[in-house]
Amino acid sequence: MPIPADASGRTAYELDRAHVFHSWSAQKALDPIVIAGGEGSYLWDADGKRYLDFSSQLVYTNIGHQHPRVVAAIKAQADVLCTIAPAHANDRRSLAAKLIVDVAPEGMNKVFFTNGGAEAVENAIRMARLHTGRTKIMSAYRSYHGATATAIQVTGDPRRWPNEFAPAGTVHFFGPFLYRSVFHATTEQEECERALAHLEQTILFEGPATVAAIVLESVPGTSGIMPPPAGYLAGVRELCDRFGIVMICDEVMSGFGRTGSWFAVDHYGVTPDLITFAKGVNSGYVPMGGVVIHDDIAATFDERAYPGGLTYSGHPLAAAAAVETILAMHDEEVVANAARVGSEVLGPGLRELAERHPSIGDVRGLGVFWALELVADRETKEPLAPYGGASPAVNGVLAAARDAGLLLFNQYHRIHVVPPCNLSDDEAREGLAILDDALSVADAAVLRAEPVLVG
Amino acid sequence: MPIPADASGRTAYELDRAHVFHSWSAQKALDPIVIAGGEGSYLWDADGKRYLDFSSQLVYTNIGHQHPRVVAAIKAQADVLCTIAPAHANDRRSLAAKLIVDVAPEGMNKVFFTNGGAEAVENAIRMARLHTGRTKIMSAYRSYHGATATAIQVTGDPRRWPNEFAPAGTVHFFGPFLYRSVFHATTEQEECERALAHLEQTILFEGPATVAAIVLESVPGTSGIMPPPAGYLAGVRELCDRFGIVMICDEVMSGFGRTGSWFAVDHYGVTPDLITFAKGVNSGYVPMGGVVIHDDIAATFDERAYPGGLTYSGHPLAAAAAVETILAMHDEEVVANAARVGSEVLGPGLRELAERHPSIGDVRGLGVFWALELVADRETKEPLAPYGGASPAVNGVLAAARDAGLLLFNQYHRIHVVPPCNLSDDEAREGLAILDDALSVADAAVLRAEPVLVG
Ligand SMILES: Cc1ncc(COP(=O)(O)O)c(C=O)c1O
Ligand SMILES: Cc1ncc(COP(=O)(O)O)c(C=O)c1O
Repeated sequence: MPIPADASGRTAYELDRAHVFHSWSAQKALDPIVIAGGEGSYLWDADGKRYLDFSSQLVYTNIGHQHPRVVAAIKAQADVLCTIAPAHANDRRSLAAKLIVDVAPEGMNKVFFTNGGAEAVENAIRMARLHTGRTKIMSAYRSYHGATATAIQVTGDPRRWPNEFAPAGTVHFFGPFLYRSVFHATTEQEECERALAHLEQTILFEGPATVAAIVLESVPGTSGIMPPPAGYLAGVRELCDRFGIVMICDEVMSGFGRTGSWFAVDHYGVTPDLITFAKGVNSGYVPMGGVVIHDDIAATFDERAYPGGLTYSGHPLAAAAAVETILAMHDEEVVANAARVGSEVLGPGLRELAERHPSIGDVRGLGVFWALELVADRETKEPLAPYGGASPAVNGVLAAARDAGLLLFNQYHRIHVVPPCNLSDDEAREGLAILDDALSVADAAVLRAEPVLVG
Repeated sequence: MPIPADASGRTAYELDRAHVFHSWSAQKALDPIVIAGGEGSYLWDADGKRYLDFSSQLVYTNIGHQHPRVVAAIKAQADVLCTIAPAHANDRRSLAAKLIVDVAPEGMNKVFFTNGGAEAVENAIRMARLHTGRTKIMSAYRSYHGATATAIQVTGDPRRWPNEFAPAGTVHFFGPFLYRSVFHATTEQEECERALAHLEQTILFEGPATVAAIVLESVPGTSGIMPPPAGYLAGVRELCDRFGIVMICDEVMSGFGRTGSWFAVDHYGVTPDLITFAKGVNSGYVPMGGVVIHDDIAATFDERAYPGGLTYSGHPLAAAAAVETILAMHDEEVVANAARVGSEVLGPGLRELAERHPSIGDVRGLGVFWALELVADRETKEPLAPYGGASPAVNGVLAAARDAGLLLFNQYHRIHVVPPCNLSDDEAREGLAILDDALSVADAAVLRAEPVLVG
């Protein structure tokens, strides 16, 4: 085959199957859609079929697809300077850092840039270990922090299991999650108090002086979109202060508007020591992640060399996309829109679906960050797919939605409704209507499973 | 301060100092150049001062700065589709994979895409561990493989030391390096034989059945550009075959033309099981790295899920840059140019400098990949800066070159001459002339250190 300069949808598909190795999958049975273009909340494939994107891909196109200002900024920067090494300075990088610290909590004034979320977590953990002189890292079950060695070891989902090569003192605890409370709690307040007591006990038994950091998603995302009860993050902050532990809030998924605020910690009035980010910072138009660093941690590396880095730290093209994304989000009030569409349309709409669909066990979320628990039985809360696995019923919902032109995010038995932050009300309603139909597949599985009462 | 949309050179500098946390450095004393633009082998700063870039930044702009075809391809793709999740397919990603396997050794037909080099190494090691069911990884002293947890643990330079949190069975061996032979060898052939015997002994004492992979840079880069003697890589291949060990060649720095061939292994006729790449694949215009996977390893994950991934795997904008970079390198015979300019101009020119500059202890390299060892004494080979450190003499050379408009790459006592692969002969001569002058700073330090013979 001669070297191709272009590829049709069919060729793209065949070359993908022949040469592209995909994440998190057995390779043989894959059957990807060839995506050819997008605009706002929509994508289309190589055959012209349109999809309403309620996945934001992997929950990152917070500003939608092909936002004209961001596309223009990337093109303008491409004309000026695509890349420069981390040791030099560059105006786009400087401005991106400034715009990020401006939306971060007070006292967090430095940014270390990476290419993505896992590297952000790796570097935050490195900073915490060197700042404290301690090694151990505590993190939550039901969490995802990335797939490089340390990031996957602190992760609290099944993707950790095949990757646990000599974890350097990583300890998992349970966060608050009333719907499946491990603390036998019946109210959010009780769940909060018991989760904090459990965390304190775990710290005490691990040895407070051995713990460098607690890393947790401000609102856990991939593992189920579980907004913590009021007081939980403040309680974690208090424990960290009491024991000299660095508090790392992973906002790779929850940051930059997803929850209806710039960072999810804003809802809780808490200032962490380190915030990891990626995804929404520039909607992934160019790979970028990073760590926002509190002055206290930054000072540790004023005179002492920070022993970490990467070739593309502070990449100008990625930074140009971040600058324009953040400016556009300010100008277009995208964060406020996420809050509004969540509380006025998505939240009420999903709760209304739950009233009519027996397969929905729980509806949780805020902003444009919502999860549906699909269960075989509302009483027992038995998930409609096993932990770490899939099921025909859930796959059926996804396929029905996709056929009807709606892309959803899925983990195990859960469906996540995670559209762009600038979703319109009409788009929200369009997606809810398709989801309504698709959920009948899950309902059918639930009804089949129920004991039939013969009259 | 109001939210800025733009920044002058001065503002960019100040915002950088206030808000950008830089890699591998104590933050306080940094004084970066604000780079404003570039073209081909040149960059310029915000004051309009021009620099000939013999660093290729961090040895990655193999096609030079702002190559018009690659810039145009990025802009065109930005108009079509900036990003898409890894689970879907996309024409640019498919084509990039195809073009990469076309220049890789026979039998290596799949590509797993990452954002950079460290993630490539992390994933290659994960593949090797799961493919073999073994844990231990062997790697070379004098190596650099990246800064995420596993990548830094297999690294063989001082940057590993502050990062060794529970390495999961990582073992370092010595590679061949005649100039500073640890094997007491006097010829390249002897060095080769002894280095292979040492590696075999190390494998035997570690337990061959415990070793998942040997990871090594085909031509070690950051640690000194030490092209292995003929037969060394073939010998490693034979040991790997004999003991069922996966051979991972890290070509993050040496790949895509740097050595005057597509991959450095091409010089040695060796096919590894996995090749890691980044940098030159698209000259870093958009962050991208990856692993080229031999069919034997790929087959392991046909039916079994591969437990690794990242949000921006196979990013369309990065892939578009890779497609156009590789096509332009073919059309413009960039790889052949790197070989030619190395053997006809850079190599002879650097050797000629060595004749006149007592501070040069050794000249090594091929293609556009050259190292000068700066020594205090040619007899003892005492380095002009300590291992892991810096010295006024070497810093003086770098500063003199920079003042005269030449950017070099430096590690400890070494200067690396690593310009773009499409460097012209005139540019090569221009850089050599500036380097010639700058080396007088090092010579002065050498002469000061020498005992003065009073007549
Ligand atoms: C909270 C969180 N942290 C880290 C990551 C890892 O990010 P990346 O895939 O860019 O490495 C993710 C990815 O989904 C995430 O959701
Ligand atoms: C051989 C080699 N491997 C891996 C890396 C790490 O790549 P990155 O900085 O993109 O993570 C480098 C970086 O210089 C390298 O030279």
